[in-house]
Amino acid sequence: MNRKMLQYVISWVLKMEGILMLLPALTGAVYREKEGLAYLLCGLCCVAAGFLLSRKKPENMELYPKDGYVAVALGWVVLSLFGCLPFMMTGEIPFFVDALFEIVSGFTTTGSSILTDVEALSHASLFWRSFSHWIGGMGVLVFILAVLPMKGGSVMNLMKAESPGPSVSKFVPRVRGTAKILYQIYIVMTLVLIACLLLSGMSLFESLTLSFGTAGTGGFSLLNSGCGTYTETQQWILTVGMILFGVNFNFYYLLLCKRFKAAVLSHEVRVYFLVILAAIGAICVDIRGVYDSMAETVRHAAFQVGSIITTTGYSTTDFNLWPEFSKTILLLLMFLGACAGSTGGGIKVSRVLILLKTVKKELMSIVHPRSVRQIQFDKRPVEHEVLRSINVFLTVYMTIFAASLLLVSMDEFSLETNFSAVAATFNNIGPGMGKVGPMGNFSVYSPLSKLVLTFDMLAGRLELFPMLILFSPSTWKKRG
Amino acid sequence: MNRKMLQYVISWVLKMEGILMLLPALTGAVYREKEGLAYLLCGLCCVAAGFLLSRKKPENMELYPKDGYVAVALGWVVLSLFGCLPFMMTGEIPFFVDALFEIVSGFTTTGSSILTDVEALSHASLFWRSFSHWIGGMGVLVFILAVLPMKGGSVMNLMKAESPGPSVSKFVPRVRGTAKILYQIYIVMTLVLIACLLLSGMSLFESLTLSFGTAGTGGFSLLNSGCGTYTETQQWILTVGMILFGVNFNFYYLLLCKRFKAAVLSHEVRVYFLVILAAIGAICVDIRGVYDSMAETVRHAAFQVGSIITTTGYSTTDFNLWPEFSKTILLLLMFLGACAGSTGGGIKVSRVLILLKTVKKELMSIVHPRSVRQIQFDKRPVEHEVLRSINVFLTVYMTIFAASLLLVSMDEFSLETNFSAVAATFNNIGPGMGKVGPMGNFSVYSPLSKLVLTFDMLAGRLELFPMLILFSPSTWKKRG
Repeated sequence: MNRKMLQYVISWVLKMEGILMLLPALTGAVYREKEGLAYLLCGLCCVAAGFLLSRKKPENMELYPKDGYVAVALGWVVLSLFGCLPFMMTGEIPFFVDALFEIVSGFTTTGSSILTDVEALSHASLFWRSFSHWIGGMGVLVFILAVLPMKGGSVMNLMKAESPGPSVSKFVPRVRGTAKILYQIYIVMTLVLIACLLLSGMSLFESLTLSFGTAGTGGFSLLNSGCGTYTETQQWILTVGMILFGVNFNFYYLLLCKRFKAAVLSHEVRVYFLVILAAIGAICVDIRGVYDSMAETVRHAAFQVGSIITTTGYSTTDFNLWPEFSKTILLLLMFLGACAGSTGGGIKVSRVLILLKTVKKELMSIVHPRSVRQIQFDKRPVEHEVLRSINVFLTVYMTIFAASLLLVSMDEFSLETNFSAVAATFNNIGPGMGKVGPMGNFSVYSPLSKLVLTFDMLAGRLELFPMLILFSPSTWKKRG
Repeated sequence: MNRKMLQYVISWVLKMEGILMLLPALTGAVYREKEGLAYLLCGLCCVAAGFLLSRKKPENMELYPKDGYVAVALGWVVLSLFGCLPFMMTGEIPFFVDALFEIVSGFTTTGSSILTDVEALSHASLFWRSFSHWIGGMGVLVFILAVLPMKGGSVMNLMKAESPGPSVSKFVPRVRGTAKILYQIYIVMTLVLIACLLLSGMSLFESLTLSFGTAGTGGFSLLNSGCGTYTETQQWILTVGMILFGVNFNFYYLLLCKRFKAAVLSHEVRVYFLVILAAIGAICVDIRGVYDSMAETVRHAAFQVGSIITTTGYSTTDFNLWPEFSKTILLLLMFLGACAGSTGGGIKVSRVLILLKTVKKELMSIVHPRSVRQIQFDKRPVEHEVLRSINVFLTVYMTIFAASLLLVSMDEFSLETNFSAVAATFNNIGPGMGKVGPMGNFSVYSPLSKLVLTFDMLAGRLELFPMLILFSPSTWKKRG
């Protein structure tokens, strides 16, 4: 392991976080809140710590595959530990476990909150909460490697470890260029969303924070009542925004390159939109009569489906009160998640599609034993290694899920609450059902459960392996 | 596909079922119940239908791999369709969907019931219900191939399709001999259990039916109150019985061959007992204070753990009322299931162990990229094909589970009820939680949901693939 290089990467994470904290500090200055000072102070601490760690540049700038995973996991842990400091310093979230839960929920774009009264927060803290979604959405280390000069192999190992989805092989030859293009698309789309919300009559502060939450598919809201009080137009803008940020960014990349045919033929994106339409349709039929008009029914159904499948977690209505069939659809969408290569969480559409293809192939090999088939995705063969890692992913996913459910159940809430709490954090969604539903929050859980759910959020965002490798003893053993 | 041979196998299934129905007919005669006549009549019909189908022996007696799966799936469907006739004829379960659910629950050793008042049934029907557990426990087609002369390859393809667990390769060279030995062990163990229960002062009828349910890890009970009214000794006999029938029968085979060391070293069996002890311990701590004495606490905990992990489904107490932590342990045990090669259901201990080993291997290959490892189980390398089929199994398992949950949710019960209903039928356990808990039953569900759950029971018992292949259109397409 290249420990010096690890330290160097972490130092850059800290420096970047320190600089980013100046934005909530500025927000505090605009609103003349003393909380802004806490952000200024914490930001300076981060930068100072960053410089202390990077006094000398390592001679060997290479990151090996394992190092990539460790760097990403450690980077996110450090980011979270420093990111929760302002919450504690302002006294708005005094307890460490709570503050950590809240900021991890932010960076991992989960959007679950332990706050019972969001509206009591200062503007600076509200800004930092939402901004953390935007930072975490596209990935912290991907950002760093877009600006930091590193060797080709190192860059790829970092990107592989942080990017959501089964494979990033498509862009490999020019990873650094790709990281830049991805961030450009991300920034432009966010700006368009902010503009739309401003045009709809929303205030600048609300437009900014809601757009950050939508772009990162995070879901922290500014109001205790969620997004129910916004106008119909604003709700539709958010719905479309959430769904578009759940699309594989390759799709936009292809559009930019004017490769329209390839973009439209993307199997994952087509299935993603198909599932959204089907879910909205089914829910509309199921909840007919709950709302006054057809337009309202469709609006609520579309908003909630877009919010859950992209794992954003905003809500315009308390879907806890919907009939069980609609709730089950939402529960299943929580696990499915958005497209790979988007800012959304969950298992990912492409991973599920590839898994189903392996099933079909296995059945075919029993029915027609002599035929040899290869699994293809978007007309490319899926490598054996990718298949194996997807299968392992599913096993790890279920194992962590079961273990978390068991630990959380010690708090004695109902199965619905516990199951959906684990599902909502592990898939980086935000609200669950029951006590942790859209109108509830996670403050009811014990500190142990909060730590378990915090781990789940990180493991879910980083797609399991980085966190497992970080905590695996053999990673830290020196070679005999 | 060798359709003539398929027909021949089905004819034997019917003849065997007809003969087995004479036992409940005899029970009816002993108790002078008119219901016995229905069993006599149905039994004769089965035998007649069997002879009609097998008028001439096929020239080609070979069953190809696909045929093995189709034969098993079709055999079980036919078995169930004819097996539910007596329930309808006696008028005790007049509706077809209900009668089918009940007998499939019997043959698949699930033990879920749609009856609200079990005690109203005739002795003949009670006997048939419990006897169906015993028939289904070891496998219907395995029994047939133990008596019917068939070619080596055919026998293996049948056995592979019907036996629970990831692989039956160990016994392959002498499959028919193995089938006989397995049935001998099964019969002797059942007789020992009957003797123990008789010695404890139980009536012959109760000893027989309870032993059938325990041996098949089925779980239909004779009393509305479950097993709570039996004496402490009887409850302990049942506990030990259930746990022993959940052990891999290879273990007993090895004991018979006096290969004690190999038996004791079986990884699956050791983990199985370890999990049982850990679960009992954790539950005892969690439910302390619920019962009057420590002895009672341990007895209830051991009984319920043994009942759920072996997917039997008997109960001595309403675990619905236990704290959430204990309920979650039971829920996780439902999915884990018993050992492969036992009469129990679920995912199976060995399958979970192999899956976890693949995870460890994958992590190791990231941490030490240059080391080449092979997955071993009981000191034998696990074949690549077995690994692939386990992975596919997990995917199919989750897909069917999700689809079933969605369909069943249309009945608008709580998530706890629906989730545990699917889990309890799919894993062949019996009682779930909530409305379908130990003191509830499945009569609350709509006919559609009952059919979905019936499919789940069959798919769970036959380990998914046979049912999928039976319903896959390409199986029935003639070669172009």
